[in-house]
Amino acid sequence: MRAIRYYGPGDIRLDEIPEPQVGAQQVKIKVAWNGICGSDVHSYSSLLPLSATLTKPHVVTNETLPVVMGHEMSGTIVAVGPRVNTSRLRVGLNVVVEPLLSCRKSSCPCCRDGTRNNCPNATLIGMGGCGGGLAEYISVDEDLVHPLPDGTTLEVGALMEPLAVAWHAAKQSNMQAGDKVLILGAGPIGLLVSRVVRVFGASWVAVSEPASKRRQLASLHGADVVYDPTSPGLDVPAAVLQATGGRGADVVFDCAGHQDTLDTAIHAVRPRGSVVNVAAWGNKPALDIDTVTHKEIRFTGALAYDRVHEEMLKAVAAGKFNELENLITRRIWLEDVVEKGIKALMYEKDEHVKILVRPNV
Amino acid sequence: MRAIRYYGPGDIRLDEIPEPQVGAQQVKIKVAWNGICGSDVHSYSSLLPLSATLTKPHVVTNETLPVVMGHEMSGTIVAVGPRVNTSRLRVGLNVVVEPLLSCRKSSCPCCRDGTRNNCPNATLIGMGGCGGGLAEYISVDEDLVHPLPDGTTLEVGALMEPLAVAWHAAKQSNMQAGDKVLILGAGPIGLLVSRVVRVFGASWVAVSEPASKRRQLASLHGADVVYDPTSPGLDVPAAVLQATGGRGADVVFDCAGHQDTLDTAIHAVRPRGSVVNVAAWGNKPALDIDTVTHKEIRFTGALAYDRVHEEMLKAVAAGKFNELENLITRRIWLEDVVEKGIKALMYEKDEHVKILVRPNV
Repeated sequence: MRAIRYYGPGDIRLDEIPEPQVGAQQVKIKVAWNGICGSDVHSYSSLLPLSATLTKPHVVTNETLPVVMGHEMSGTIVAVGPRVNTSRLRVGLNVVVEPLLSCRKSSCPCCRDGTRNNCPNATLIGMGGCGGGLAEYISVDEDLVHPLPDGTTLEVGALMEPLAVAWHAAKQSNMQAGDKVLILGAGPIGLLVSRVVRVFGASWVAVSEPASKRRQLASLHGADVVYDPTSPGLDVPAAVLQATGGRGADVVFDCAGHQDTLDTAIHAVRPRGSVVNVAAWGNKPALDIDTVTHKEIRFTGALAYDRVHEEMLKAVAAGKFNELENLITRRIWLEDVVEKGIKALMYEKDEHVKILVRPNV
Repeated sequence: MRAIRYYGPGDIRLDEIPEPQVGAQQVKIKVAWNGICGSDVHSYSSLLPLSATLTKPHVVTNETLPVVMGHEMSGTIVAVGPRVNTSRLRVGLNVVVEPLLSCRKSSCPCCRDGTRNNCPNATLIGMGGCGGGLAEYISVDEDLVHPLPDGTTLEVGALMEPLAVAWHAAKQSNMQAGDKVLILGAGPIGLLVSRVVRVFGASWVAVSEPASKRRQLASLHGADVVYDPTSPGLDVPAAVLQATGGRGADVVFDCAGHQDTLDTAIHAVRPRGSVVNVAAWGNKPALDIDTVTHKEIRFTGALAYDRVHEEMLKAVAAGKFNELENLITRRIWLEDVVEKGIKALMYEKDEHVKILVRPNV
């Protein structure tokens, strides 16, 4: 079958590889769509901490580079292993994959206590090994496979993985119904956080984003107010303070991950409010720790997701996430992943939000 | 009367000034003891954010420099204003002062909601104005005066203010009974945090401190394990992980405020644990934000205190804080504040923890 494989920064190839076998407790999925994630774009520039490496087999997957890419996938089950619970998963069912892998050792406090996303060796299918969604087929352990709700298209199904990231971030924020929320960055995660906090009962949502196309989408996806932080004379924290009666936002999500957005978060959040970092940084920003302390801000981060798919997919089934398809700005084939996918997201940020890849012709 | 007044960095004088009047809702206190705080030491080097300034009257106190110093005080009431509730406060009663001042405006969300310590204009008696404990007498609003429990000496009474800081920090940490706690820095605040977390039910307390005298005191004040972070070959996070079965500390308090201690906190805390900054920094350290995010650490700060004195003084009255007097390493007169007080804490850190000043002969 054809598969996009990652050999290292700058080296992504379309290869012909064998179709995966299906394990006893696995299902084999014919991939319908796989979204390109910001982390895929980052990995084109530099090796990510979660990635497999060239020389040392990954602790969880035992694989070295190259690995198949892609972790935001939807598809249809084409085979089930002999020990799979077929009352839940059966051939012909449309499904999505929860691609989080962790060591699952009883000696790992995170895997033992259930917070698998915090496992020091956590990785993703499509990054650390175990196949990926940028291939015609993938076999996945049954507990990482979730039925796609009836009425949800396979295209939108490919957005369930980033939606789970947003859902988990909202849970980590400890936000309450009625809270006023500021979101910094309106890429796919920022836009989906905007949708999720609405479902969680946010009374006011503001989004700050420099790219005009993304600002337009923010207005469609839950934002009451949209700021362009590059506007001359606009001070986002001051604008948020004014809009919240001098109090500040109850919760701020940093979905961009720049020194500017971190500073904005700390100055725009109310005393004792929450700031949640959902971005990957790769560097160590300067923290205005005296302000964090004077305001007694609760600063935390959210990584991937942790047992959220079931409740999230129930909300999707209940119709709480309609019109997600307008986040999809391009649909491409496997052979176009680098030029029309990754490079478009690097160099044409104002044009694109989510680019989906269709691995099967 | 005689009073120590702060004119600015490097300029602290013993002045003769008028005794304070007593306002209608104030009590006048003859100061017994006043402790020298780390912030007093800092202010000798540089002007602090909470301090009054030379030119612009402070928003809360309307005062400019010089101001009387000292905010950790105990004493005896010598006069009460005509509108004071004398069933609570009367002449002859030993009391302590809660020196937190805030704007108390209805337009201030913090003062309105009760989190006065987060008020942007918060300051302390003895720093922003309204007199101070390094004087023979002080008049204080009755709501900031608390009776000292019977059986607690006036010397130990001067420790109630830093004990309130520690109590508030423990509350801000959201610690639970049974938690394993790491404290970085065993100055007065670190040592008192160690005592408070014991009262809150910590099952294991480790303290990391380079000064040997302070390490000895840590062993007397609740620590199960004491680390010298300067020991060759000792890696404090690795030692904490080993001591906690690979899990990490549930809560870490940074009572030192250095890049080293911040890094140690983030690496020694368990996934989803709490790190509480109790230190004043004056600079912006580099934050390992990707680790905060992968571990989903809850990072926060604690400033002063917020409605904790009543419950804390009940715990003191119940005998939960005996033997605090051995934190007092020197007792001096007003004329010795700079040379035997502030400079001793700057240059003889291994000898001193809490230095008390007796303003009345």
